[in-house]
Amino acid sequence: MSEWASAVAFFWPLGVTMKNPLYCLGVLLLVCGVSPYLQEGPSPLSTYALRLGPGEEIVSSLFKFVQEKKLIAPFVITCVGSVTKATLRLANSDALNNNEIINLKERLEIVSLVGTLNKDAHLHISLSDKDGKTIGGHAIGDLEVFTTAEIVIGELSNLEFTREMDERTGYPELVIKPRSEGNVSNI
Amino acid sequence: MSEWASAVAFFWPLGVTMKNPLYCLGVLLLVCGVSPYLQEGPSPLSTYALRLGPGEEIVSSLFKFVQEKKLIAPFVITCVGSVTKATLRLANSDALNNNEIINLKERLEIVSLVGTLNKDAHLHISLSDKDGKTIGGHAIGDLEVFTTAEIVIGELSNLEFTREMDERTGYPELVIKPRSEGNVSNI
Amino acid sequence: MSEWASAVAFFWPLGVTMKNPLYCLGVLLLVCGVSPYLQEGPSPLSTYALRLGPGEEIVSSLFKFVQEKKLIAPFVITCVGSVTKATLRLANSDALNNNEIINLKERLEIVSLVGTLNKDAHLHISLSDKDGKTIGGHAIGDLEVFTTAEIVIGELSNLEFTREMDERTGYPELVIKPRSEGNVSNI
Repeated sequence: MSEWASAVAFFWPLGVTMKNPLYCLGVLLLVCGVSPYLQEGPSPLSTYALRLGPGEEIVSSLFKFVQEKKLIAPFVITCVGSVTKATLRLANSDALNNNEIINLKERLEIVSLVGTLNKDAHLHISLSDKDGKTIGGHAIGDLEVFTTAEIVIGELSNLEFTREMDERTGYPELVIKPRSEGNVSNI
Repeated sequence: MSEWASAVAFFWPLGVTMKNPLYCLGVLLLVCGVSPYLQEGPSPLSTYALRLGPGEEIVSSLFKFVQEKKLIAPFVITCVGSVTKATLRLANSDALNNNEIINLKERLEIVSLVGTLNKDAHLHISLSDKDGKTIGGHAIGDLEVFTTAEIVIGELSNLEFTREMDERTGYPELVIKPRSEGNVSNI
Repeated sequence: MSEWASAVAFFWPLGVTMKNPLYCLGVLLLVCGVSPYLQEGPSPLSTYALRLGPGEEIVSSLFKFVQEKKLIAPFVITCVGSVTKATLRLANSDALNNNEIINLKERLEIVSLVGTLNKDAHLHISLSDKDGKTIGGHAIGDLEVFTTAEIVIGELSNLEFTREMDERTGYPELVIKPRSEGNVSNI
């Protein structure tokens, strides 16, 4: 998107979002300074730790873990480990051009893993190779563990993560809400 | 600073810091093994989540958030997202030579954001480009969001972050204190 | 390890681990879906902050901190700072070929530090140089602070980290257990 188009999308939301009155209302509230679930807190935090072994795939293992534990506002706190493969979506991708993807097949050290873990999780990773050179991007999957992956996950105990289509980006983007009363964790 | 000068600064603080008796006392306490607010804890943690949208600037948005919420010992737990710009201060900079700065104007994925968020915040970032190549440094600003930035912030509930000039580095450096009684959060 | 050998190690554990009946039992439990201390939670989190100054070494300082505070399930939440040196083990290393090591002697910014901090800690780091280029790997030590290192450490209050030899990798790998009753922190 050009800077001009970006400015239009930001300052003249009615033109862009006329098809979706609810979203339009959201942008208007935003412009008026009332953020609709774009920021929340404070929340207590509960935490989980897991270790994946050789051959396990990190992204799908994290999805499975989050589903099994019924986590509602989960995210990665830290991750250390190594992989033999990785599929990353690179920085020039966007909703219309989603095919800038790289498949790596070599031993790589995980030097960062960041992001949120609710449905349609959003994870970015950086990996270092045999020379120490690092490569990074959006973690699509295929992150097959070489020796180990030690991961600590946080869960915001009284918040809820969902995703809603953001017409400015073409992606379902993070929405942060207080939990409904019956849903608040006691940790 | 040469290694020799560094050694002098460390083992012979009186000579270097004679102009500042309080700092001199601090270094003496340090040498004697009494750390003046260089480490603290345990503290409970309260947490906040926010999502920034297209065109928002990350560093100033985080400053504003921390001020609005009156956070006293805040830091970044995780951040995932993308930017169209970034201004970074590179590794060869120091207090006397502060101009090693790079201005990036391209789509970049955020693969790490680390650091503390109190006044004179100290943030480092690594960003990956269209080829997956990563570039990193001290986040000065100009981090304009491309599609999204999902950020989780931690606040050490019973600690306080300030900064005090450290003559060894020429920068105001982090000081970590227990909060005064009236200031302790109940989260 | 070739992919074939990896597959054998995964699907036919009896052949590989016959010498160690306890490990063999562990793998069988794992295959049957009963994870023996591979994942635990939820746990409350307690947190610590520290600042290291010029000349201090990060890995040994963190070990000392964890020992002094008697932390049992500690990990790095965030770290920002700069170093003048670093010794990293690179991605092609494994238990049989442990000598892929690089010694860096230049000013570097810490752009990520991830991992767990119990005995035989497992830390990976990425560092950016004077051009913004990043280099990463397993942090062995020699991480001598240039100006500062600001670090927040988390401790999973009701879990316990140990390490046990994993014959699949040749390394002592993370084991995550609930704490015994007398050992649970009150934070």
